[in-house]
This record gives sequence, structure tokens and C-alpha cells, in this order.
Amino acid sequence: MDISKKAVVLISGGLDSTTAMAIAKHQGYAIYGMSFDYGQRHRFELAAARKVSDYLGAVQHLVIPLDLTVFGGSALTADIPVPKGRNSGAMARGIPVTYVPARNTIFLSIALAWAEVIKAGHIFIGVNAVDYSGYPDCRPEYIAAFESMANLATKAAVEGSLPLHLHAPLIRMTKAQIIRTGTDLGVDYSLTHSCYDPCPEGGACGRCDSCVLRRRGFLEAGVADPTVYT
Amino acid sequence: MDISKKAVVLISGGLDSTTAMAIAKHQGYAIYGMSFDYGQRHRFELAAARKVSDYLGAVQHLVIPLDLTVFGGSALTADIPVPKGRNSGAMARGIPVTYVPARNTIFLSIALAWAEVIKAGHIFIGVNAVDYSGYPDCRPEYIAAFESMANLATKAAVEGSLPLHLHAPLIRMTKAQIIRTGTDLGVDYSLTHSCYDPCPEGGACGRCDSCVLRRRGFLEAGVADPTVYT
Repeated sequence: MDISKKAVVLISGGLDSTTAMAIAKHQGYAIYGMSFDYGQRHRFELAAARKVSDYLGAVQHLVIPLDLTVFGGSALTADIPVPKGRNSGAMARGIPVTYVPARNTIFLSIALAWAEVIKAGHIFIGVNAVDYSGYPDCRPEYIAAFESMANLATKAAVEGSLPLHLHAPLIRMTKAQIIRTGTDLGVDYSLTHSCYDPCPEGGACGRCDSCVLRRRGFLEAGVADPTVYT
Repeated sequence: MDISKKAVVLISGGLDSTTAMAIAKHQGYAIYGMSFDYGQRHRFELAAARKVSDYLGAVQHLVIPLDLTVFGGSALTADIPVPKGRNSGAMARGIPVTYVPARNTIFLSIALAWAEVIKAGHIFIGVNAVDYSGYPDCRPEYIAAFESMANLATKAAVEGSLPLHLHAPLIRMTKAQIIRTGTDLGVDYSLTHSCYDPCPEGGACGRCDSCVLRRRGFLEAGVADPTVYT
């Protein structure tokens, strides 16, 4: 195998990362899915990440336990209520409380380590700067800075054998464009999970930022929404 | 308290990070020590990190469990022998097998998250580019790239309230200079642990890279070496 065609794909089990994984597969990469059990409220997404990785034919799917609750700081990891309806981040200005401090930096760093070990020259991340413009670590300038840093950080990159390419294929897409892209690639979105605050049986609340953006995305894309809202 | 004077200090319990913490304290920072239980062979260093943090008056000392053995790739985390004597990295050219893929990037990323949560504008790391010139993530250009990335990554930095300053005060020092600096600041090096491959009781092997550099450093600094070599 051409080792430059191995890609670590960060997969949360949500709509965006699933689409990013489908794009990596479509582009011919051998896929290594990586997820994090970081104490998130919405741990249903880990089961979704596993299903999606199987469905898209990942070579391997690794779940890294990393307890980010030790220092909290986010509605997703600490005892801060997830905003709903008109108070939610999707409706409000600024950076939402569901922001997890330095989360993408942490995830990308660990993906970088795994990429070096398995000799993968590519990492895919499903960030987008349109719907989540409030998250600093979803912006193109952040992605470019991480890639530059990564190419100074590892033995593989510094010795020149394996430069690191960081792909964020959704970064300039709207949610509707993401859904249309994934649908064209045959993604089964019923396998994915987006809700930040699911009910105990895993049904989506329909009212948190993530649900609101997902519902609206399917509507705008003109694609039937397979999500079960409770 | 002036929040800009809070610093997260990465503390392994070894000679270098201990000296970096002593420098941060000397410069007037309130110290928040952070260590990682990452499956390293030399876990004795965690007890040393705790002792050093107490000794230097850290406000808090956090140990983050992070299992890097899941993907291995280093003599420090996988079943690869630690080189000794003439085959060791200290003697050899290139990047040694004790290099842990992307380790400093992972540690700094998690330090960045904690810094944001506690509103600290400073991170100290005890890397040096002289003795460990083989480690890509110990070089000045890497440190500068991480700092640039960090200032695009967090809510605190992007909103302008808390830019991130990454300090690597030892980066251009020799081991002897580090030991002399720490000794001048009153560091008790008997609390520290450097050996990559300690005996079960915690005594230092005296022959791995880390021991070789430490012994030579004390000799060159003209400071008595308090280490017990077995």
C-alpha cells in the first residue's frame, strides 16, 4: 500500500465527521477512525462512531479514553446546562458554552501521534466554519496553523519521510451542503448522532444547538431527516 | 490576583521540568503543575512530580491519565528495549527510539485547555534543544509554531482576553547550565527522577540516555549528584 494514502479520520459519530470520513473514503484513503471518550454528556455518539466506521470500511477504529472532566469548563463536560431554544448558541452571538477548551487541538494532537505510528500522512477533521463560526478551532486559519506546527513536531515530518496534510473538507460548507455531499456519497445518516443532550434511550432532544442546526440542514438540503426527535 | 501571572507548568518530575518550575516560581508566577500518567515505564517520575510541586509551592498539581500505550511507537511506552551505553541515543545520531510520537504536542494541548479553564496566560515547558537535539518537539521553531497555533485555538486567545505565552526557558541551555541555574534557585535535585528504566525500587540505572546526560550534567556543573544509581 502507498502509505501516503493512509488517513486518520477524527470521527465523533455526528453528521459532519461522518461526511468527512465518507469524503476520505471516496478520495481513496485507507481509513483509521479515531474517537474520544472524554466524559461528554452525549456518549451515544461513540456507538454511532463505531457503526459509521464499520459502515464506511475503516481499517481500524480506536476509542481513546481521555477524561476532560477533570478540569471542566464546558457545558459538554461540566455541570453547566446545555442551552436550548432561543438561548442556544446557534441563535446567540459569540462563542457558545458548549465550546470545550482546546478540544480540537487535543484531538488533533493525539491523531498526529497515531498518524506517525501507523505512518499515515493525512488527518481528516470534519470542522466547519459556517454554522460553528463561534468555535475558534473550526476556522481555516487555525487549521493552517495546526498543520504548520505538526510539520515541525514529529520525527516523521522533520526527517522528511512523511509530511502531514491536515484536511478539513467541510470547512466552508453549510450544513445543507454537507448533507447533500454525504447523500451523494451514499452516507446513511440514520447511523449518526448529533444531539448534545440526548434522552436516556438516545433519542435527540431537537432543541440544542446541534439538533437545531441538523434539522435545519436536512430541511435546506431537501433530504429526509432520519433522526428520531423525542 | 493578576491572572496573567498564573502559569501551567508541565512537570515530569525530572531535572529539566523541575528547573523550569523553579524558574516560573522565581519569576513570580502562581504555579499550576500538570503531569501525565501515559503508561510510561518510568512511572516513578509521577511521585517525583508530586514532591517537586509541593516543594515549590504549586497552587495545584494535576495528573492526567492518558493511555498512550494503545498505539505504542516508543521505547518509553511500547515493548521496545530502552537503549543503554554505546547504543543509546545520547551517543547515537538521529532521533532516539525513546522519542514518544507527538508527546509534547499532546501535553501542551492539554495544558492549553487547562490554562484556558483557570484563566492562565502562560505555559512553561522544560524542553531543551542542546542535549536532546534529536527530539523535533524540543526545538525553538516548534515551540514558536505551537504558540502561534495556540493563539488561534482558544476562545480566551481569540477574544483577546488572554493571549497565550509559551515559555521554554531551558531551550538553549546545556544540562550543566540547567543544573547550575536550578542550584542557584535552591532546587533540591534529590527530589527529582530522570531514569527511563528504573529498577523496581526506583533506583536509577545510570546507563540510559537520561541517566547518562544527568550524570554528565552534574559533573560538568561541578555540583554533587544526589542520584542513587543502582
